[in-house]
Amino acid sequence: MPKSLTHITSVHVRFSECDPLNIVWHGNYVKYFEDGREDFGKAHNFSYTEIYTENGLSVPLIHMEMDYKRTISFGETICVETKLVDDPAAKIVFHYKIFNSKNELVCTGKTIQVFLLLEKKELMITMPSFFETWKKEYLK
Amino acid sequence: MPKSLTHITSVHVRFSECDPLNIVWHGNYVKYFEDGREDFGKAHNFSYTEIYTENGLSVPLIHMEMDYKRTISFGETICVETKLVDDPAAKIVFHYKIFNSKNELVCTGKTIQVFLLLEKKELMITMPSFFETWKKEYLK
Amino acid sequence: MPKSLTHITSVHVRFSECDPLNIVWHGNYVKYFEDGREDFGKAHNFSYTEIYTENGLSVPLIHMEMDYKRTISFGETICVETKLVDDPAAKIVFHYKIFNSKNELVCTGKTIQVFLLLEKKELMITMPSFFETWKKEYLK
Amino acid sequence: MPKSLTHITSVHVRFSECDPLNIVWHGNYVKYFEDGREDFGKAHNFSYTEIYTENGLSVPLIHMEMDYKRTISFGETICVETKLVDDPAAKIVFHYKIFNSKNELVCTGKTIQVFLLLEKKELMITMPSFFETWKKEYLK
Repeated sequence: MPKSLTHITSVHVRFSECDPLNIVWHGNYVKYFEDGREDFGKAHNFSYTEIYTENGLSVPLIHMEMDYKRTISFGETICVETKLVDDPAAKIVFHYKIFNSKNELVCTGKTIQVFLLLEKKELMITMPSFFETWKKEYLK
Repeated sequence: MPKSLTHITSVHVRFSECDPLNIVWHGNYVKYFEDGREDFGKAHNFSYTEIYTENGLSVPLIHMEMDYKRTISFGETICVETKLVDDPAAKIVFHYKIFNSKNELVCTGKTIQVFLLLEKKELMITMPSFFETWKKEYLK
Repeated sequence: MPKSLTHITSVHVRFSECDPLNIVWHGNYVKYFEDGREDFGKAHNFSYTEIYTENGLSVPLIHMEMDYKRTISFGETICVETKLVDDPAAKIVFHYKIFNSKNELVCTGKTIQVFLLLEKKELMITMPSFFETWKKEYLK
Repeated sequence: MPKSLTHITSVHVRFSECDPLNIVWHGNYVKYFEDGREDFGKAHNFSYTEIYTENGLSVPLIHMEMDYKRTISFGETICVETKLVDDPAAKIVFHYKIFNSKNELVCTGKTIQVFLLLEKKELMITMPSFFETWKKEYLK
């Protein structure tokens, strides 16, 4: 098993996120994943603003996938489990699990981000040192 | 009656824009107004990108209002009537009417935008000369 | 001064709610107003689901207006002040104030909702009795 | 190679779909895929409304994936290539390619939908006959 670090975020489902079938529209799960990533960053000293400002990097998504297992309705408070999984490549890999208010698994997913040098508009092939340092301290 | 110029845009309603009541969620009308403004700009040589690039201005919205009279459903192609109405102040005033696929009036609205000097972050109190020139040529 | 009741909600601004000017896109304020209304309902025993289920009513918006005074950025936690204001007509009138993380006023707004008998698809001209009872107990 | 049918849709990118990095926010690609599917359905006699009304079925998404290769900016008209790919299981499998205004590949993706009997809330294990008939006529 690769090293990892997990964080749990609770999100309240908005009326405007639900579709005519009275369930959360599948595209809105992307927002819940992003809520999970942002909250993970705040809790574990891994903030995009700092990555951006201090390291001159952006971290664009190059892959996203999700498997839908149940539906979510308006008014539910859901639980997003966001797990950063260690990877030898210069990538940020997150795995997600979303649970409904009954604690049933609703969705699993994965995103992959890369490191982009903002000034040169070049992808980094090797892992930036701040990420290596961070991983040593935080992943177990 | 103040001088004005009207442009008509057709917009296709997305599934994801409809809510559990099976109608377009009221907040999504803001997108239709924006579609109308953008199409107006293209048709009448009044593009935000140019205002931004050539004149160093942004045109933030300071007021928006809408009155809802009917509902819109998924799959409808609606008609957005966007009218720029002359105003003596340094403001861009648009009036909107949205019609459903049966040509019934669904919504009326209004937006007011001002001119912001991007570098100084200052509002312009007098009308920018490019806008005065444009109005002379286009409004009737 | 009409009687009223105020509730305060805090909302976290999402990355996906911000536009290329690096500020919350003006249309997304509609979601913050809705967050305010929903939280108001929970706190003060005024839930749309109950209105819908127990009284066979929906409460469509017929008017919305907003005045933008400042901008909001990604990562801010904003404060939505939602005030139900007494009105003699068969309408639900909310006033809103949004404050940024420095407690500066960002936006004011207003929505008006009416009572629609779901089965007959008819507007109610007189106030439903449950709303009159609720107002007697809650508005001051 | 499995049999397939491809349809091409053009979509105009909205200002409100772009994020502070001045590119389309990755979650909004889900809307472009949906635009592609809907347009495919209209062009090839495969409409969700009919599937729903005439066959008592809904077709929920159980899987979605996307690979991002380039970015898209405000104002671009993009091209969505939507390909229904034959599959022996009781599933609707679409593959997508999005091209920017220079005809460069921006994103590839895939969705899988299943057939849900609306009344019984049961998944269909065998392919519904209308879909088998449709595939015989349309896939090549």
